[in-house]
Amino acid sequence: MSAGTGDLLAGGVPGPGHLRTLTALVLDTLESAARTRGGPLPAGGPDAVARRTTDLCAPVLPEEGVGAEAALGDLVRAVAEGAADPADPACVAHLHCPPLAVAVAADLAGAALNPSMDSWDQAPAAGVIEDLTTAALARLVHPDAPAPDALITSGGTESNLVALLLARERAGASGPLRVVTGANAHHSVHRAAWMLGLPAPAVVACHDGRIDPAGLDRTLSGLGGGPALVVATAGTTDEGRIDPLPEIARIADRHGAELHVDAAYGGPLLFSERLAPRLAGLDQAVSVTFDLHKLGWQPVAAGALAVADTALLAPLSLRTDYLNADDDTEAGLPDLLGRSIRTTRRPDALKIAVTFRALGRRGLGELVEHCVRTAEEFGRAVDAHPALRRRPGEIGISTVLFRPAVADGLEPEAGDAVVAEVRRTLLVDGRAVLGRAVAEDGDGRHRLWLKATLLHPEAGGADLLPLLDLVTEAAERAAAEGGDGVGGVGGSDIEVRATERLSP
Amino acid sequence: MSAGTGDLLAGGVPGPGHLRTLTALVLDTLESAARTRGGPLPAGGPDAVARRTTDLCAPVLPEEGVGAEAALGDLVRAVAEGAADPADPACVAHLHCPPLAVAVAADLAGAALNPSMDSWDQAPAAGVIEDLTTAALARLVHPDAPAPDALITSGGTESNLVALLLARERAGASGPLRVVTGANAHHSVHRAAWMLGLPAPAVVACHDGRIDPAGLDRTLSGLGGGPALVVATAGTTDEGRIDPLPEIARIADRHGAELHVDAAYGGPLLFSERLAPRLAGLDQAVSVTFDLHKLGWQPVAAGALAVADTALLAPLSLRTDYLNADDDTEAGLPDLLGRSIRTTRRPDALKIAVTFRALGRRGLGELVEHCVRTAEEFGRAVDAHPALRRRPGEIGISTVLFRPAVADGLEPEAGDAVVAEVRRTLLVDGRAVLGRAVAEDGDGRHRLWLKATLLHPEAGGADLLPLLDLVTEAAERAAAEGGDGVGGVGGSDIEVRATERLSP
Repeated sequence: MSAGTGDLLAGGVPGPGHLRTLTALVLDTLESAARTRGGPLPAGGPDAVARRTTDLCAPVLPEEGVGAEAALGDLVRAVAEGAADPADPACVAHLHCPPLAVAVAADLAGAALNPSMDSWDQAPAAGVIEDLTTAALARLVHPDAPAPDALITSGGTESNLVALLLARERAGASGPLRVVTGANAHHSVHRAAWMLGLPAPAVVACHDGRIDPAGLDRTLSGLGGGPALVVATAGTTDEGRIDPLPEIARIADRHGAELHVDAAYGGPLLFSERLAPRLAGLDQAVSVTFDLHKLGWQPVAAGALAVADTALLAPLSLRTDYLNADDDTEAGLPDLLGRSIRTTRRPDALKIAVTFRALGRRGLGELVEHCVRTAEEFGRAVDAHPALRRRPGEIGISTVLFRPAVADGLEPEAGDAVVAEVRRTLLVDGRAVLGRAVAEDGDGRHRLWLKATLLHPEAGGADLLPLLDLVTEAAERAAAEGGDGVGGVGGSDIEVRATERLSP
Repeated sequence: MSAGTGDLLAGGVPGPGHLRTLTALVLDTLESAARTRGGPLPAGGPDAVARRTTDLCAPVLPEEGVGAEAALGDLVRAVAEGAADPADPACVAHLHCPPLAVAVAADLAGAALNPSMDSWDQAPAAGVIEDLTTAALARLVHPDAPAPDALITSGGTESNLVALLLARERAGASGPLRVVTGANAHHSVHRAAWMLGLPAPAVVACHDGRIDPAGLDRTLSGLGGGPALVVATAGTTDEGRIDPLPEIARIADRHGAELHVDAAYGGPLLFSERLAPRLAGLDQAVSVTFDLHKLGWQPVAAGALAVADTALLAPLSLRTDYLNADDDTEAGLPDLLGRSIRTTRRPDALKIAVTFRALGRRGLGELVEHCVRTAEEFGRAVDAHPALRRRPGEIGISTVLFRPAVADGLEPEAGDAVVAEVRRTLLVDGRAVLGRAVAEDGDGRHRLWLKATLLHPEAGGADLLPLLDLVTEAAERAAAEGGDGVGGVGGSDIEVRATERLSP
């Protein structure tokens, strides 16, 4: 493993041979580590995980190396034994999807060849694949626009940042641009405004997790007519709610404001003929955040930003002699540089394209429908469970909020503390990865809920039933212990029963 | 390949089994495609590549899928046959490295497990590995600081953006922050200032590709004492030049300005005891851009931003209930959210950590030394070649600038056109991927040069000699044809001799 031995690289004709040995080791290690872990995440809590990981990995940068196979064996074992694996049906905390094997395999090709998406002479074919992929995405989001376009991004956060940047530039001298968004918006909208030097967004109140159109109307009226961008959400992080897009589009239009929709979660409903109508109005947006490392089952990163017209991307154009000199572009070398705020970029379009071709729109739509159906089944199971209560109202896409009934019998703060404690207990025991969300209850009060974000494309309602008993048992324990809500997660007084953990 | 068959996912116990079949197909396809390509990039130019790629890949999103194996086979073949492969010694245009097999294999584990680096419950062990990795990087850059820290980024562009953002926040109400940088700085410095709403950077003239300290002094004097950030470069993109850091640090300090160093290219000189002294003064910087997808042989992305003190990262801290609620953090769940401007993040630290452990600091240093030595050998070969002329002066890190002597005999514009034409001809013929750079000649005039950025950790000077004859032949042709500089790259009148192309 030193210079000149000719066995170092992943590329060229000999590279795949080097990779065969090393990827075999990786796959064997992943398999045995998943067995050792025996559940959705490691038992013992943060301190135990840190200890075991450090034992296998430190020092990360020794003076002398340990060799490729030893390093791979130890570190892959550490990361896999210590993973929260979304392929386990009990790992449902976040918009954190289990990736498809076909996408992961495609990503391996991208990593081995290492095209960089900022110039033709680093990515001749990868650039073409990206073009085909962004064209397909653009057409999906804005089917009737004459020249829709899309960019590949590192995720919803970058997509929202670029959307606000483009809007800021359109506002130009008549700015500053005012961003108007719902109380349900992702934090990245606020962060983008901060980064871009824009005034803090005006926040419109929500009812039942969705923007209140009358409130939006009032807020826009109060801005006095300067350039404004309304940011609506199609699939909120906490509740999976879709803002009333057609009404919001009409109100924005009436005020001369533009509309951006953060559809990082909900965008892939478009793959399903049955579910796409839930996104009616999306095509009225000047830009749409799309994300395929959520309901698209891609390994991170797989974000996109779709725009209604390719001319809207002009503010990103950039000329720099080493990447897109004028005479090179005039001579026919494609200019890739204006397609991102990054320079060097991984070919994330490749795994997306392979997945699209493999499954087709119909296959992707079926997987989305599966998740939505599973959430409905899970919701019914919660409703039927005497010790649990589901948040009243509709289920948002594939997100189910619920809490143990025992928490409802306590003072509000103590009840919320029990909910938080249940989540942490199951995390530390290594039995379940549930999320948390503060959301409006039937009485109009905001309470803390357990959140199950169901993105597993194969697990069904029955696979999730054990979660309900895990929650109930943990809730009884937490309520009995007083639910102070700040119990440590060191795990010393927590009985870890790895063998009883929920498994796929 | 539809919901419920249980063969879709990369994770869990069964995932590695699914991946074995699909990665075998990928590796076989990469190997046969590298043979078919037969050189550093596909022959025929952009139109031919677009045609072949589209034939294999379109429609990217069909109504019905073609299945995983067919999609993988076709698209991986397309991207590999159409790759500019940096593992080929004749692919030297950019800071575009051939990745190490060990890093690519580690990245496969990251993709299969898909941890997301924004919360503990999505990345229990991966978060620990990132901590260990950033600590090692921080200590490498700021060895004497009491509490250095580092962030993983998507590359130098994001690192520079975050560096300017942090400086803007430190300037606060006494701003606006003025950024002062060299004419040799990467375009991302200017882009970051634009994105962040800062005034355009003040640009200091360079001599021989490096910031002129007297010019910097004058520029800072002219700013009148407001908050300023000097951005110096350690390894310029065009010439591999390292700005005079100790002198720049002294001048900045005298003016009460802070120093950020973009060491995306040069940073890894620190791995080598022999070469590290070239970066003397780096530890005076408040922040340093570091990038391991250049002289660190990682597949993209592998950027970092090192800071002298962990408190400098405070402006990135962020609280959002679903990812780092107060009571979760108080209870001991690590808070990962303030470690990036992204939210969902791929575990790029894993491949870096595996590479570090595999090679050790000494092994990495030897690979960096190999590239520097190869550049010196290549430079001497250019000097000895009667039909070529090397740019006078020292070689910058591993970047060699040269031009065909025949271009020197023409009018300046026609000479530059010949240089540009040589590069395009070799690209279209599929024989070599050379870069281009405008840089100062011995007479003080700026001319266009061919650029060889030597990042191959195994190819030696002898492997690069065929490049010299390729350039000479192409230059003679271009000069004979008049060197109009805007000859098309359609390739119809260009004789493609794939079998004669330079191979590893």
